[in-house]
Amino acid sequence: MKNLIYTLLFVTAVSWSQTTDEHMLKQIYKTALTDVNCYYWLDDLSNKIGHRLSGSDGAEKAVLYTKTQLEKLGLDRVYLQEVMVPKWVRGAQEVAYAEVGKTKTSFPICALGLSVATPKNGLKASIIEVKSLEELKVLGEEKVRGKIVFFNRPMNPEYIETFHAYGSCVDQRSSGAREAGLLGALGVIVRSMNLRLDDLPHTGMTNYKDTPLEQRIPAAAISTNGAELLSKMLKDNPNLQFYFNQSCETFPDVKSYNVIGEIKGTEHPERIMVVGGHLDSWDLGDGSQDDGAGCVQSMSVLEIFKKLHYKPKNTIRVVLFMNEENGVKGGLRYGELASASKENHIFAMESDSGGFSPRGFSIESDDESYAKIAGWKNLFEPYLIHIFERGHSGTDIGPIQSEKIVKVGLHPDSQRYFDYHHAANDTFDSVNKRELELGTATMASLMYLFDTYFK
Amino acid sequence: MKNLIYTLLFVTAVSWSQTTDEHMLKQIYKTALTDVNCYYWLDDLSNKIGHRLSGSDGAEKAVLYTKTQLEKLGLDRVYLQEVMVPKWVRGAQEVAYAEVGKTKTSFPICALGLSVATPKNGLKASIIEVKSLEELKVLGEEKVRGKIVFFNRPMNPEYIETFHAYGSCVDQRSSGAREAGLLGALGVIVRSMNLRLDDLPHTGMTNYKDTPLEQRIPAAAISTNGAELLSKMLKDNPNLQFYFNQSCETFPDVKSYNVIGEIKGTEHPERIMVVGGHLDSWDLGDGSQDDGAGCVQSMSVLEIFKKLHYKPKNTIRVVLFMNEENGVKGGLRYGELASASKENHIFAMESDSGGFSPRGFSIESDDESYAKIAGWKNLFEPYLIHIFERGHSGTDIGPIQSEKIVKVGLHPDSQRYFDYHHAANDTFDSVNKRELELGTATMASLMYLFDTYFK
Repeated sequence: MKNLIYTLLFVTAVSWSQTTDEHMLKQIYKTALTDVNCYYWLDDLSNKIGHRLSGSDGAEKAVLYTKTQLEKLGLDRVYLQEVMVPKWVRGAQEVAYAEVGKTKTSFPICALGLSVATPKNGLKASIIEVKSLEELKVLGEEKVRGKIVFFNRPMNPEYIETFHAYGSCVDQRSSGAREAGLLGALGVIVRSMNLRLDDLPHTGMTNYKDTPLEQRIPAAAISTNGAELLSKMLKDNPNLQFYFNQSCETFPDVKSYNVIGEIKGTEHPERIMVVGGHLDSWDLGDGSQDDGAGCVQSMSVLEIFKKLHYKPKNTIRVVLFMNEENGVKGGLRYGELASASKENHIFAMESDSGGFSPRGFSIESDDESYAKIAGWKNLFEPYLIHIFERGHSGTDIGPIQSEKIVKVGLHPDSQRYFDYHHAANDTFDSVNKRELELGTATMASLMYLFDTYFK
Repeated sequence: MKNLIYTLLFVTAVSWSQTTDEHMLKQIYKTALTDVNCYYWLDDLSNKIGHRLSGSDGAEKAVLYTKTQLEKLGLDRVYLQEVMVPKWVRGAQEVAYAEVGKTKTSFPICALGLSVATPKNGLKASIIEVKSLEELKVLGEEKVRGKIVFFNRPMNPEYIETFHAYGSCVDQRSSGAREAGLLGALGVIVRSMNLRLDDLPHTGMTNYKDTPLEQRIPAAAISTNGAELLSKMLKDNPNLQFYFNQSCETFPDVKSYNVIGEIKGTEHPERIMVVGGHLDSWDLGDGSQDDGAGCVQSMSVLEIFKKLHYKPKNTIRVVLFMNEENGVKGGLRYGELASASKENHIFAMESDSGGFSPRGFSIESDDESYAKIAGWKNLFEPYLIHIFERGHSGTDIGPIQSEKIVKVGLHPDSQRYFDYHHAANDTFDSVNKRELELGTATMASLMYLFDTYFK
């Protein structure tokens, strides 16, 4: 009989909390779809401020703008965290053409982030096409020296998730210039990381690592249509001359900031749950998808909690990280200071995969925490959230070191992401208001559940 | 022992078929993502032919174009099925403004499909705002006679699926003119069925039912921004005069066609499995989402089977239905002829919810068939297909009457659909190639499974 009573009590408690949670998620989604500012903040960031490359005026304006908006939410604390960031400037519009006899064919290119410039009058040389870093190494110095190397391995369309295609392709962009430089190449042209055939070059960081400055060779991305055409031309004219000119420049590091806002926990203010995105962007579009969306979604998580008068047990902190794109200095600084002050981070979530329809979560945690989160799947079903997979959470939250921390990345639909990623069309019009808002609701819901059930 | 052997045989058979099915779905998705024509067909339909309103030149060109493309696939039979369809023509660009004193404020409007014209010089009258048909009826003839009625109930953003918001809002558009006309109104202006605030009016059919021609009043849609502005102006100036002018005209019905292609079943050629979309569109954009996408996806289902040399047991038939938008004459004709010739349809699938990332299926069937289909859910998991819900399948396949037929609608992500639906921005650039292809793979996979396991 006693057992029966306990069982009944337990069942009652479970259904009560299930109902409470269902109700709370419903309120969260309703608020997100009818009463939050994320879309309007994104409009301002994108259309009033524009791109936010680290060290740019836009980045500094974005720091002040988001700080002001967070202050308006009536949080318990809003502050800036200083961090030194790279300042790389693209310079004049890049120029590229292939020369066959007297005919010049122009190509849309853009300097890769942190690339060095070409000589002032540009660089002209033979160009050799490879599909991979391995193929480059097989060619060796003899065939590479004095040439421009053209990396032209397309993203593999067979992957269902486009991020897998990106991951298995981006080594050309990140390491191509370093590896080709070691073999005496003069420059590097990389096929844009874009599954679609179009005319937009997509930038992104190239990493010279410890290559001495004077040995660094210039690197640019070429549009996917451009890459197809250049490859075709090379088949017909293997000796064609390729010319490109870019005047990008790296200046000394400058001071910038992570932007931080908090709702203090009522029971465990010392336990911290972070939600964030990165405030910097590349300089070609206005960074609406990457990662304006993630920033405003994270801000709206706290906005939703304030609007619902939800008092979290643990401290909920939004962090807008500076400089994810070309250095992750903001993420590193945040992690370093958190460790130094022995902050206890129990949870961190990042949204940095675009503002598309949310599908689920990518989770980094121990088995127990994973099982707990996956156990909430049914609560998310009415909101069409179905992916609870283990995998990479986010670059900026990577350096947070707390023991047993659970890290989560929002997982939106990925099909369109690389149409816009790091390109001139990453602009406000590519973001759908509802998709953005559903993302913020999905993030807030998981934060609520974790806050409620963390022990 | 005998039981054990049976069990082992059964388990072996189940795992063998599971592996075979997994392999087949992998091949289907791979083919769709790398080697089908649906996106290029859609480019032609949208950019070379343009809109395909029933009775228009575009509709007739689309019939010939898709028939030719189906013939190139090497199907067993390609043919046209005659059907008489309405011919409604929009006429000159519509004009609308509100007049307060001497100030005129213009509004973007478009005539609703099948609407009558205003008098030649337009219609000017007081305008009265209501939120619903019920509110209109409460106002009654006394307050409505001689006025223009402005239906301004927004789609409810709280629904997660936008089709639910549409379904609970569209009565204003479909019945508003009929109901207002009965109360002596002179015309009707309806807020566009669009969750987004923008400047595009969205057309769609208005249904006068048996209202005598001379008693029909003209009806137009106004953009959502326009509706917001007009509502605000009416609060300040309840007596403002509203003017609109549209010259749309209905001609006698004309001959058109459903376009049909078949792969004959190897075991049961008499059993028919249909896959289709509707070839007609509205006339404002080029109908890429509604429903060019569904047509080319359906065509590519058969293309995939041909490319994989898959020989279906049952006959697989693609049907591109004419005239879904303003009459469903193609669907009705197809159903009528199927009944008359006692064709045995075991399955019908329609794609008419846009070319966005596929999420699952909306299924109309008996419990047993539903359970069977839902049992394949795990096979679809690698492709992020997770919705197996009971619900409306498709308008064109509705009239097919075979006993125990299973009807399925492809269920894509719905968040962006009503941004484009029936508006001038329903154009090719709104469709993402991969999303379209994933849709066709999802359709082909379910067709394959049903064909394989139907008994």
